[in-house]
Amino acid sequence: MLDWDQATMMPEGGAAARAGQLSTLEVIRHEMLCSQEMADLLSLAEDDNQHLDEWQTANLVRMRRAWRNASALPADLVEALSKSASHCEVTWRSARARNDFAALAPELEGLLRLTREAASARAAVMGCSPYDALLDQFDSGASTESLDGLFGELEEFLPSFLPQVIEYQKSQPARIHPAGPFPIAAQRQVALGLMEDLGFDFSHGRLDVSHHPFSGGTPDDARITTRYSESEFIQGLMAVLHETGHASYECGLPRTWRNQPVGRARGMIIHESQSLIIEMQACRSRDFAHYLTPKLAAAFGADPAWTPGNLQRLFQHVEADLIRVHANEVTYPLHVLLRYRLERAMISGDLAIKDLPGAWNDGMDKLLGVTPPTDADGCMQDVHWAAGLFGYFPTYTLGALAAAQFYAAAMQALPELRQSLSKGDFRPLMGWLRENVHQWGCRFSGDELLRRATNAPLGTAAFKAHLKARYLPDQNGMNP
Amino acid sequence: MLDWDQATMMPEGGAAARAGQLSTLEVIRHEMLCSQEMADLLSLAEDDNQHLDEWQTANLVRMRRAWRNASALPADLVEALSKSASHCEVTWRSARARNDFAALAPELEGLLRLTREAASARAAVMGCSPYDALLDQFDSGASTESLDGLFGELEEFLPSFLPQVIEYQKSQPARIHPAGPFPIAAQRQVALGLMEDLGFDFSHGRLDVSHHPFSGGTPDDARITTRYSESEFIQGLMAVLHETGHASYECGLPRTWRNQPVGRARGMIIHESQSLIIEMQACRSRDFAHYLTPKLAAAFGADPAWTPGNLQRLFQHVEADLIRVHANEVTYPLHVLLRYRLERAMISGDLAIKDLPGAWNDGMDKLLGVTPPTDADGCMQDVHWAAGLFGYFPTYTLGALAAAQFYAAAMQALPELRQSLSKGDFRPLMGWLRENVHQWGCRFSGDELLRRATNAPLGTAAFKAHLKARYLPDQNGMNP
Repeated sequence: MLDWDQATMMPEGGAAARAGQLSTLEVIRHEMLCSQEMADLLSLAEDDNQHLDEWQTANLVRMRRAWRNASALPADLVEALSKSASHCEVTWRSARARNDFAALAPELEGLLRLTREAASARAAVMGCSPYDALLDQFDSGASTESLDGLFGELEEFLPSFLPQVIEYQKSQPARIHPAGPFPIAAQRQVALGLMEDLGFDFSHGRLDVSHHPFSGGTPDDARITTRYSESEFIQGLMAVLHETGHASYECGLPRTWRNQPVGRARGMIIHESQSLIIEMQACRSRDFAHYLTPKLAAAFGADPAWTPGNLQRLFQHVEADLIRVHANEVTYPLHVLLRYRLERAMISGDLAIKDLPGAWNDGMDKLLGVTPPTDADGCMQDVHWAAGLFGYFPTYTLGALAAAQFYAAAMQALPELRQSLSKGDFRPLMGWLRENVHQWGCRFSGDELLRRATNAPLGTAAFKAHLKARYLPDQNGMNP
Repeated sequence: MLDWDQATMMPEGGAAARAGQLSTLEVIRHEMLCSQEMADLLSLAEDDNQHLDEWQTANLVRMRRAWRNASALPADLVEALSKSASHCEVTWRSARARNDFAALAPELEGLLRLTREAASARAAVMGCSPYDALLDQFDSGASTESLDGLFGELEEFLPSFLPQVIEYQKSQPARIHPAGPFPIAAQRQVALGLMEDLGFDFSHGRLDVSHHPFSGGTPDDARITTRYSESEFIQGLMAVLHETGHASYECGLPRTWRNQPVGRARGMIIHESQSLIIEMQACRSRDFAHYLTPKLAAAFGADPAWTPGNLQRLFQHVEADLIRVHANEVTYPLHVLLRYRLERAMISGDLAIKDLPGAWNDGMDKLLGVTPPTDADGCMQDVHWAAGLFGYFPTYTLGALAAAQFYAAAMQALPELRQSLSKGDFRPLMGWLRENVHQWGCRFSGDELLRRATNAPLGTAAFKAHLKARYLPDQNGMNP
C-alpha cells in the first residue's frame, strides 16, 4: 500500500520519508524472518510433518524458501543493497534525462558489486550459480538451463520471422490513426467498463493513474494503475487490460490460504502470463476488436479509424523498435533476450559496466537490426538494473510463452471462447483461468501448473504457433 | 498512511483485510516496545545519563513513557481491546442509524469492562487513578484534579453566559444564508487557496475527502481531509482551516528530532489548540471575514450574503445545540463537560451502560437546556466511546482554553496581527506559533510550553475574555 501510495498519491516532497518507512519495514521483516525462533519453528514443523496435507506441505516449503532467501544475506548487505538501489535509481532518472551514461556508471558499478555479492551468498546456500540465485528471487523454477533452451528456440525463429511480418504488413491496408484528442475522462470511462467486463470487483479495488502502470495492493483490495495521453489511447487502454489480468490473478488466489505463503501468486512468470493472456491473447484479437469498435465510437465520436479491421491492425502492428515498453509481441522477446545475455555477463564478471553501451548497441543491431541513437534510448531505457533488479527481465518472455500455452489450452477446452470475446463476455476465459491457475496459489510449481492445464511443460511451440497464425495469416489460415 | 487510505481511498470491501493489517502492525509495535532488549537499553541509558543534553533527556523520558504505557498491558488485553473496539464501532454505526441503543449496549458493556481493566493496569503502574491513566494516553499532564478546576470555572460561567449571547444575537441583524448551490470544485479551489495562505506546502501534503475531516500522514507528508456539501459551504471550509492548523503543527515539529519521541507533537491538548487558533480564533474573526468576502463572491457568484458583517454573523452564530460536532465555541465546552462527567462515572463504576441514555438527557437539560429527541442525537452521537476512546473528550475543551491563551499572547506580541489577517497574511501568526509551540515538540510539558509562551499555566481567563469580547461586544467593547 505504501508503494501504491508513493506511485499514485504521495506528494513529491514525501519521497525521502517514504524511502525510510519502506526500508524500516523491510528491515523489520528481515529480522522477523531470520530470527532463531522462526528457524526453530520451521525445523520443528519439518521434523513432524507426517500429518500435513498437500497444501500444508507446500506451504511449509514456501516458508522454508522465504526463510532461506532472507537468511542467506547478512542484514548489513540487505541494507547496503537497498540504499545503493535507491540512490542508483535516483541517479538513473536524471542521467537518463540528460543521456549521460558516464554519470550513471559509478553508481551502477557499486550496485552491481553488491548484487554479485548477494547472488554469490544465495548461490552458496542454494547450490546453484549466482545468476540462477537471482532468477529464483522472482520465480522459483526459472534456471539458466531452461532459459538457454527456450531463448535458443526463440532466437532461431524470431530474427527471420520479424522481417516476414513487416513485409506482410506492408501488403495490408494502411493503418488509420484516429484523429483524437481522446479526453481522459472518456478514456477512463471506457477502461472502467472493460474492467467490469473482465469481472473486476470495484468494491475490492480501484483504478488510478501513475507514471508507469502497475498492479498492486492485496487480493482483497486490488489497486491497478494506468496513464493517459490525450493524443493516443491504445497504450493507456492496453495497460488497463494488462494490469486487470494481473489483478484478476491476485483476486482469484485461494481465500482459504490468504496471507499464507502457499496462498500467494506462483511467481512472476505465471503472473505475467495472466496479464498477457488478457492483453495480448484476448484483447488484441480480431474478436475483441469487434466488441470494442462501437464502444470507442461512442466514447470518442465518429472516426474512420473505428472499424474492427483497422483496430486489429493498430493493435497488432509490428515494427523493429528501440524501446522495450513500446515493443510488440514479435520483438519483445528479442529485447528481453538481449537483456538476459547482458545481465548474465555482468553477473558473471564477463561484461564491465563501462562496456555496457557498446554491447547493448551491438546486440540491438544483431537481434533487431536497429541501433539506438542515444544511450537514453539504449542501455539506460529501463529502470530495472538501476533499481537492482537483475534476473527479472526473463520473466516477461517466459510469461509470454506461458500465456500462449495456457490460451491455446483454454481455446481447446472452450469452443465458445472466441465467440464470447466478440461480445465482451470474459466469463468463460476467466472461469478457466480461475480453475486452472488462480485457485492454486503456490500449491504446484510453475511447470506442474502448466502440465496440469496444458499437458506440457513450458515451451515455445504454442507461442510460435500463435505468432504465425496472428501475424502471417496468409500462410497459416487465420489472423486471430 | 493506512488509516488515511482507509478513510479516503480504500474500497469498502477492503475493510476486513485492512483491520487485519492495522492490528498486525499494532501487535508488532507492541512486541518491539515491550521487548526485554528495549527495557535493558532504557535502563542503561537512564543509569548513564550524565552526558545527555536537555533534548536528549526529554527524549529519554518520552521513550520510558511509551515503554511504560505499552508494557503496562498484557498482549492479550491489547488484542482483546482492539478487537472489541473494532466490533463495537461497527455495531455503533448500524445501531445509531436505527436509533437502537439496546443493540449497542451489550457490546459497549464489554468494551467498557476491558477499558476499565486496562485503565486499572495502567493506573497501578503509574500510581494514579484509572481515569487519570486514560487521560494520560492522549495528553500526559492532563489530570482529574486540573480538569475539575478548569471545568468548574467553565460551569460557573457558561450556563449563564449562553442565554445572554443568544439574547444579544437576537438584537443583531438577521443572518443571510447564501443561496447556493456551492459547486464542490469551487469549494475545493477556495480551500486550496486558503491552505496556501496558511503556508501549507503542497509538495509535502494533500487535501482529500473523507466522511469525517481529519489530519493525518507525517510531518513530511501531511494529509488533511474535509467533506463537501453542495448546499452548505461553511462546515467544509472550516474543517479545512481546522485541519490545516493541525497539519501546520506537525509540519513545524523539530526536523532534527524527526522520528524520535521528543520530536512528536506534545499531546492532544496542544494539538487541538493549534487547530482552534486557526479555525476559531483567526478565521471566524471579523478581520478574516473581510479577506474572505470577495473570495466567496468570486467563487460562488453574487449573493447578498457576501458582506463581512454577515459572514461574521454566520461564523459566530450561537445556539443551544444537540450535536457536539455542530456546536459553537460557547456551547462546545458544555458538550464536553457532560461527556467528561459521564465517562468518569462509567470508568469508576458509578454509571452503568443501561443508565447512560437517561443520564445523558438529564445532563443536556441541565447544561444546555435542551433534550435530545432520540438516543441517536443523544448519547449515541459520537463514535468515541464505541471506539474505546475514554479520556479523549476533555482534550477538545482544554485545547480551546490553550488556543485562547496562546492567541492572546500572540496578539500582544504582534501588534500587526489583526491587520495581517484582514489581508489573508498568516505569516506573522504562523511564525509566532512555529517559534513558541511547533519547534519544541515534546521538549517541554504542555504547562511549561504555555508558561513560556503566555506567562501562565493553562487557565480559563483568556478563553472567557475571548468569548465576552467576541459574543457580547456591547458590554466588552469589541467583536473580533
